[in-house]
Amino acid sequence: MASMAALSTQTPSLSSHKTHKPQYTKPTKISFSPNPDPRKHQRISCGLIDPDGGKLVNLIVKEPHRYEKRRKAHSMPKIELTRIDLEWVHVLSEGWASPLRGFMRESEFLQTLHFNSLRVEGGVVNMSVPIVLAVNDAQKGRIGESSAVALVDSSGVTVAVLNNIEIYKHNKEERIARTWGTTAPGLPYVEEAITNAGNWLIGGDLEVIEPIKYNDGLDRYRLSPSELREEFTRRNADAVFAFQLRNPVHNGHALLMTDTRRRLLEMGYKNPVLLLHPLGGYTKADDVPLSWRMQQHEKVLEDGVLDPETTVVSIFPSPMHYAGPTEVQWHAKARINAGANFYIVGRDPAGMSHPVEKRDLYDADHGKKVLSMAPGLERLNILPFRVAAYDKTQSKMAFFDPSRPNDFLFISGTKMRTLAKNGENPPDGFMCPGGWKVLVDYYDSLASGVNGKVPEPVPA
Amino acid sequence: MASMAALSTQTPSLSSHKTHKPQYTKPTKISFSPNPDPRKHQRISCGLIDPDGGKLVNLIVKEPHRYEKRRKAHSMPKIELTRIDLEWVHVLSEGWASPLRGFMRESEFLQTLHFNSLRVEGGVVNMSVPIVLAVNDAQKGRIGESSAVALVDSSGVTVAVLNNIEIYKHNKEERIARTWGTTAPGLPYVEEAITNAGNWLIGGDLEVIEPIKYNDGLDRYRLSPSELREEFTRRNADAVFAFQLRNPVHNGHALLMTDTRRRLLEMGYKNPVLLLHPLGGYTKADDVPLSWRMQQHEKVLEDGVLDPETTVVSIFPSPMHYAGPTEVQWHAKARINAGANFYIVGRDPAGMSHPVEKRDLYDADHGKKVLSMAPGLERLNILPFRVAAYDKTQSKMAFFDPSRPNDFLFISGTKMRTLAKNGENPPDGFMCPGGWKVLVDYYDSLASGVNGKVPEPVPA
Repeated sequence: MASMAALSTQTPSLSSHKTHKPQYTKPTKISFSPNPDPRKHQRISCGLIDPDGGKLVNLIVKEPHRYEKRRKAHSMPKIELTRIDLEWVHVLSEGWASPLRGFMRESEFLQTLHFNSLRVEGGVVNMSVPIVLAVNDAQKGRIGESSAVALVDSSGVTVAVLNNIEIYKHNKEERIARTWGTTAPGLPYVEEAITNAGNWLIGGDLEVIEPIKYNDGLDRYRLSPSELREEFTRRNADAVFAFQLRNPVHNGHALLMTDTRRRLLEMGYKNPVLLLHPLGGYTKADDVPLSWRMQQHEKVLEDGVLDPETTVVSIFPSPMHYAGPTEVQWHAKARINAGANFYIVGRDPAGMSHPVEKRDLYDADHGKKVLSMAPGLERLNILPFRVAAYDKTQSKMAFFDPSRPNDFLFISGTKMRTLAKNGENPPDGFMCPGGWKVLVDYYDSLASGVNGKVPEPVPA
Repeated sequence: MASMAALSTQTPSLSSHKTHKPQYTKPTKISFSPNPDPRKHQRISCGLIDPDGGKLVNLIVKEPHRYEKRRKAHSMPKIELTRIDLEWVHVLSEGWASPLRGFMRESEFLQTLHFNSLRVEGGVVNMSVPIVLAVNDAQKGRIGESSAVALVDSSGVTVAVLNNIEIYKHNKEERIARTWGTTAPGLPYVEEAITNAGNWLIGGDLEVIEPIKYNDGLDRYRLSPSELREEFTRRNADAVFAFQLRNPVHNGHALLMTDTRRRLLEMGYKNPVLLLHPLGGYTKADDVPLSWRMQQHEKVLEDGVLDPETTVVSIFPSPMHYAGPTEVQWHAKARINAGANFYIVGRDPAGMSHPVEKRDLYDADHGKKVLSMAPGLERLNILPFRVAAYDKTQSKMAFFDPSRPNDFLFISGTKMRTLAKNGENPPDGFMCPGGWKVLVDYYDSLASGVNGKVPEPVPA
């Protein structure tokens, strides 16, 4: 198996180092002409699920116009973006939130808060998480009567222009209550991005000067929905199943993903492809950072736990809300736009402990239930997570068998992190040794101060 | 004009004392037969808007089965209903919440909290406010494995049976946050009906033994959606416009209602009928009680401010949430079920002051905006409230003219109540004298202790 270091090639999926072997002899095109010759092989077109709104949004200014756009932006009022704002610009620019074409105006914000969906011609699309940009009184004053603003990064470089702007009140309490179902202090995203944000929101149509890059060595994994669709088409995928994660992959996850492919093959699909899609935007302090997670995922493929032939590893650029049933809809909806028509949903997706009370913030089953009833997600096939645990009789991760509960060991994320922090090993077969070593190295680096201060514990 | 005392006749609308004069010579039936004879008068059928789900729900047990139903209920576990629970049983029993057939099960509860709507065959219906029944640990224990429970009133009389029950967690914090957009202490409905309620919710299919009556002299005004539909049909209404209120009617309201009828006539409707629909369930302590409001509404019709010929006054049995944009959807949706196809929405509907902060809880425009975008309400015509104020130059209520703002006086609900409390008169033309006297009498009765203690002030 190849190492990730070898992967900075043109097609930046973890398996791109291999010669692509299509599963069909030749792709076929569905033809509506009378009496088509069945022996004539044609190309499948439109094989993937349609993006929300029918067309994938792309807000990136075309090359020849960038200089002019940047020049014009120079004279506009400027808003400096935080890291999370920039991540949302990235998300919007590539169409993850299609058909949304910019930061939300009030009508979109209200629909998201109240209905988790947006009315569009011919129906609704799902949109559960507000994608908004806050400005404070001083910024609002400087914007004055301008109809457009320039969005700049922390070094003053113009990243994007927001046109036909609308400024409206940022009722933080209501936003938080309706998004998280609580207003308890200590919600990570709230503390990071809302509490100290301005009291106004600014919506409009976004034009992004050039593709967002982070120059952290991981940009090659940040495939846009359009690039992912190309990759799935290139592989002749006839089903794409997405697995959202923000934690290291253990063998229970791997079992689930492998088993999902098996089930899809049984259902008659010829080439189901897995989109292993770690979240790459803001995460809370005690989550394992993206760079370490990517190293860990690399080892999992190297060690043969997942098959690179049928797996695409890519980074989902969204920041994390930890908003449970509300957020899982966003996670699923964005993957439709990337071409996934199956979505694996686990126990308590996007959940965390209640920041104040001694309980989980969300009921473990609500994410799955809400997702299965969510407006605009009717086209997506929801695959509930089967519970995997460590089977002591087989010394490996297996699907939990309720007839012999005592044979199984549940190793929670907290337990896993505690073991790795203490340099202890989990039971054999819990995670591939290469992957586990990455985790231990990460916690070692924290203890030795290589990564700065040890993160504040946030139970999850 | 007749007094309300004369109205306890068979058709209990405020104008029922008059001989009914249809607006057309004879009703006509829309016919699809070829070359219908236009001179042949036929009956309009299906003239009113369809109820949600296509058929009005009626959960009241038919007369011959009541004895048997009550007998069977005798052996079931019993849940004693609060006054508010009973009001919801009333609401459900008559189909105001059609197609809902009982207290919500978890899937309905979650859809209401997250989407303000319920999936039904062929689409969605609006449902923004949870209609749920709480039970505590002890009650849950007593229910055990029973599949049905008897719902009894405070004197132990069986009111209804709940069948095929489902018991699930009552996450109060989440319910409150998602319904009100705040969890601040002091929300009237929350303090009255949620804070001390049980930690479980029980959903199921409701069978109500007999129509709910309150024996407060006002039952004759409590027309069911089915009775209202009959009344509108009897009057040959070709448009029904609903006006929800929980306050005394002043001449600004009256102007708006009269003007709405005028606009509907201009639009080509021949006989628009007003449903003046005061909310009759739970209201907060400092709202004017229903019995006094009904007396006040009576005077308004007596004094000729509204035309009894084209007005139906009836009581809407729902309790009040004061949940602003979330609740206004419920207010509108319930009126569709009663046959209304136009809904008048005012400034800050179902709003109140923030219970802790010095501001209104909701943006004054959000109710109207949310209502106009709400899933399942697409069929309803939303009529925004025009702002009426006291025009000093004309000594009457008139639509506000922004070109001469200083000519207008805004008299808020709080201001109105303060004047009435102090026995002072508002400017001539603000409210008909008979109506104003009812208000003054009400506050006199409070001061003299006739109605018990003076209500705690709740700013609104």
